[in-house]
Amino acid sequence: MSLALFWVEELPVGDRFTLDGPEGRHAADVQRLRVGERLLLGDGAGATAECVVVDVAKSALGVRVEERFFTEAPAPRLVVVQGLPKGDRAELAVQAMTEVGVDEIVPWQASRSITHWKGERAAKSLEKWRSVAREAAKQSRRAWFPTVSELRGTAGVTPTFVLHEEADIALSTVPLPAGDITLVVGPEGGIDSNEVLDFADRGAIPVRLGPNVLRTSTAGVAALSVLSARLGRW
Amino acid sequence: MSLALFWVEELPVGDRFTLDGPEGRHAADVQRLRVGERLLLGDGAGATAECVVVDVAKSALGVRVEERFFTEAPAPRLVVVQGLPKGDRAELAVQAMTEVGVDEIVPWQASRSITHWKGERAAKSLEKWRSVAREAAKQSRRAWFPTVSELRGTAGVTPTFVLHEEADIALSTVPLPAGDITLVVGPEGGIDSNEVLDFADRGAIPVRLGPNVLRTSTAGVAALSVLSARLGRW
Repeated sequence: MSLALFWVEELPVGDRFTLDGPEGRHAADVQRLRVGERLLLGDGAGATAECVVVDVAKSALGVRVEERFFTEAPAPRLVVVQGLPKGDRAELAVQAMTEVGVDEIVPWQASRSITHWKGERAAKSLEKWRSVAREAAKQSRRAWFPTVSELRGTAGVTPTFVLHEEADIALSTVPLPAGDITLVVGPEGGIDSNEVLDFADRGAIPVRLGPNVLRTSTAGVAALSVLSARLGRW
Repeated sequence: MSLALFWVEELPVGDRFTLDGPEGRHAADVQRLRVGERLLLGDGAGATAECVVVDVAKSALGVRVEERFFTEAPAPRLVVVQGLPKGDRAELAVQAMTEVGVDEIVPWQASRSITHWKGERAAKSLEKWRSVAREAAKQSRRAWFPTVSELRGTAGVTPTFVLHEEADIALSTVPLPAGDITLVVGPEGGIDSNEVLDFADRGAIPVRLGPNVLRTSTAGVAALSVLSARLGRW
């Protein structure tokens, strides 16, 4: 079984550390780790330390660092521009894309998005996406946490590929560029054809996955899986 | 935009048909299709007909068949043996696997499944999985609906691959057999090592996806995506 991962802003320099705050509460009070048990501390930016619990307090653990690892950032980066889905589909999408290794998620106000991020709601929704991504990154023991960028409009995005069910080229066979890959996933209603043309004008290639129509919360995961396999990341 | 698909037990032989029952209610009262609009009828076993609405009644539509299609069954078949997850993760898994094209889902009572299907609950849960699969198949416009088999125990399963996070071989590079592929996905707690050995004794190869730990509701979708790309199904 994999060890549980707890997030720290900075890894301890010395070999002793007190895990407190929300992560300490989770480790001590929810997961109920005991003296002698092992855990991982990670900074979400490549640095991980395997530790052993040496002291248990209320809502905090004292740990001894046993081993340190550094994982290089994945390259090329996989960026998904996610058309804002409605309701809890957004959380499912962010959660599952984080599990399969997305490096950056860009919330995108697509013309067919029923959800609109405006004013206070924008800040709250973005914070929600970020906390879902961080939680999922911990659950899936990622050494690098994904970035969740600020909301962008169509003009702010220059994608490599646009998922489009009527595209002629399959994502599983399209030639891949050497660098980072940015993929657009539409909202529930799909991508408007003007948006597809806009993106194509800026060099994006429309691609399809299989013959079936995928939900927006499934499409990103499926596309990232295909790309990760093709790029040798998996 | 793709046309909406409605399910009929048998496609009409002649060129006129009345879509009634739950599907007719959905088409007439929820989707509110009107005279002149087009829709698809499908039997979930390869036969599809594109139709035009010629008559609207309460909870039923009269349609004229315009064109008929037959889609060959996908080959090789992709079968997922899904360790029973808890709560609504099961529905998410069935729904998303259906979207990405699974041909058969086998509910599996794994030793680490917290959920147990017994007595009346077994029948009810199986019915729920089947209805989720049918609904997702319609939403994703599949010509062939997936089979959801009866619950099996470990002895009832002879898989090709077992997803296991500690496996040395990646699903993205393992040689694929010529025929159907049966893949085991563990429940939340993962697959017990005795079960991995049991399956291996019967010829199954343990394989991993990427470096991250995937939720059970994500793992099947990711694996099916990789296999579909590798097999040229996508």
